[in-house]
Amino acid sequence: MRDVLATWRPVIDTEIERLLPREIDAEYVASFFGEPTYEYDSTAIQRALPDLTWDLLDRGGKRWRAVVCCLLIEGFGADPHDYLPYACIPEILHNGTIIVDDVEDGATMRRGETALHHDFGTDIALNAGNALYFFPLKIVARNPGDLDAETRLALYEMLMHELNRTHLGQGMDIQWHNEREIRMTEAQYLEMCACKTGCLGRIVARLAAILTGQFAEDERHAARYAELMSISFQIGDDILDVETATEDGGAFGKGIGNDVREGKKTLMAIHAARNADPERAARLEAILWADENTDEEVREVIDLLRETDSVAYARECALDIASEARDHLAALDLDEESATQLAEFTRFMVEREV
Amino acid sequence: MRDVLATWRPVIDTEIERLLPREIDAEYVASFFGEPTYEYDSTAIQRALPDLTWDLLDRGGKRWRAVVCCLLIEGFGADPHDYLPYACIPEILHNGTIIVDDVEDGATMRRGETALHHDFGTDIALNAGNALYFFPLKIVARNPGDLDAETRLALYEMLMHELNRTHLGQGMDIQWHNEREIRMTEAQYLEMCACKTGCLGRIVARLAAILTGQFAEDERHAARYAELMSISFQIGDDILDVETATEDGGAFGKGIGNDVREGKKTLMAIHAARNADPERAARLEAILWADENTDEEVREVIDLLRETDSVAYARECALDIASEARDHLAALDLDEESATQLAEFTRFMVEREV
Repeated sequence: MRDVLATWRPVIDTEIERLLPREIDAEYVASFFGEPTYEYDSTAIQRALPDLTWDLLDRGGKRWRAVVCCLLIEGFGADPHDYLPYACIPEILHNGTIIVDDVEDGATMRRGETALHHDFGTDIALNAGNALYFFPLKIVARNPGDLDAETRLALYEMLMHELNRTHLGQGMDIQWHNEREIRMTEAQYLEMCACKTGCLGRIVARLAAILTGQFAEDERHAARYAELMSISFQIGDDILDVETATEDGGAFGKGIGNDVREGKKTLMAIHAARNADPERAARLEAILWADENTDEEVREVIDLLRETDSVAYARECALDIASEARDHLAALDLDEESATQLAEFTRFMVEREV
Repeated sequence: MRDVLATWRPVIDTEIERLLPREIDAEYVASFFGEPTYEYDSTAIQRALPDLTWDLLDRGGKRWRAVVCCLLIEGFGADPHDYLPYACIPEILHNGTIIVDDVEDGATMRRGETALHHDFGTDIALNAGNALYFFPLKIVARNPGDLDAETRLALYEMLMHELNRTHLGQGMDIQWHNEREIRMTEAQYLEMCACKTGCLGRIVARLAAILTGQFAEDERHAARYAELMSISFQIGDDILDVETATEDGGAFGKGIGNDVREGKKTLMAIHAARNADPERAARLEAILWADENTDEEVREVIDLLRETDSVAYARECALDIASEARDHLAALDLDEESATQLAEFTRFMVEREV
């Protein structure tokens, strides 16, 4: 799978660069965004959009959203090279959300470097993040795939559906973060993941299905596959944070045991709060709620998550959801090579070191 | 004109409330945003979206964007009541940009009260602001006006065009703010206004034209009318800030002589920088660049703007642009009553106390 990612990544990056070059001029701005009424200041726009975007893109990222989109397009029997600009849509959206989320979360680091709003200033970073929400949506109107009107409309309606729910998910997550009590149900937690992370996955899959003209039922299976995989991945990520918390170093730029320090209400925390005795559950809420935690407190929470079998429980959930994802993938009539690569990818993403 | 605004405002507010009720439940969330995969936490969503949105809406605002859209629809010979949800689109977008802009600008006040990100927290405010970018776009897909596919696609393509340029405008403005030198041309300044403010005006007008099936030429005139009016309004706003700066009190919640304190590169500042002797131009840049200004320094800048005739120059520009706007309005074959009201509205918005 690493090979597939390695093969596709430069193709995707070349395509993103074609859409949003590293160096732009007034001619590019006019051709992509439309003629100016008066006169663009392309020097300012250079700094406001491509400089910041490429700073982030060059920091890494596997571009898996674009790659999965391409694999699905191939699986549906079309040539992904005919639809590369579309495959970049979720990838660009994702990078926009990263910038905005970091402002919302008050993050200091991103991919091992200073978060963009610290590097460039909150104003310009935030505007670029938001610009990256709308930039990719313009691709559909530019119509590089020569799609008929019905297909373009279907793409817009799909994108609006998913991008609305993305903000519901982020809203729930933030709101919970701002409450001391761990009151959400597991179903609500999974819904938050489905909206916040899953919807971007759904965009990946539904793009592929709509672009290649699949039946509604197949679009639904593809969307569910990507959604469930995203949820499983999210839970796996939370587990990884706990698993590596007791080790030294760790490869994560974001830090270690960070979810506890950030007061994140993970599936493990919800499970532990429900299964610990009331006193320890209250202690869990208190530590997650506190602005600062000692290493001792972080360890205390992690010990509790283990004692209540919450880590094992979350792992089981993640694996069940991944298996459900694979069922939806199997329900699709994909060409064999793509299906194998996608199944492998699912394993790669979910299992990792979990 | 105040009468027209007073008549329409409650109609618009009722419609916005129909779209986004003050109190929501899981049923509403499912019906507007689609069925959940698991289970929405409507309590969290209540806090994350309607609470914040209505806090802002209840602070005021003339809803002129929705009203002008209705007047244009009527002018084009259709009944605005058939298209009320659409007329709310630019109004809701506008309120979203207010929240986001206040975070970007580090504003402390909004409409005479604490800025929303101070009241609710940056995280939840920012997410709500962004949610309000996508919420109104969902209206088109919900299709309350029973529009054909071609019209819905035209609406989406129009919205994507304008919302992309909005972010170019904001990007230019912020980037200039972060530079000491006043280097932009007047044409670039007007372009910034055209993008940052004008595009939302263009949405107002183009919505009306597309909804009522106008010819491209008429849509263009309507868009130009609203765009130019918005630019003229923006310049007028900047002039007002200077005009009232020497007076006590003033009705503006945002404060007085604020543009100087914020280091805003207005059309007046650009004109003054170009027409003052180099030493005073450098002094102007220094004062606008400084993080803090004494009242003395604010007065110094305002005196310079007057001495270089920059206030008069900007006023002339604003009036020229408003007159150009009225020409585009006149080029439209609108029903007489609406045309009169729109012409009156233009005067009302641009001339105000200027």
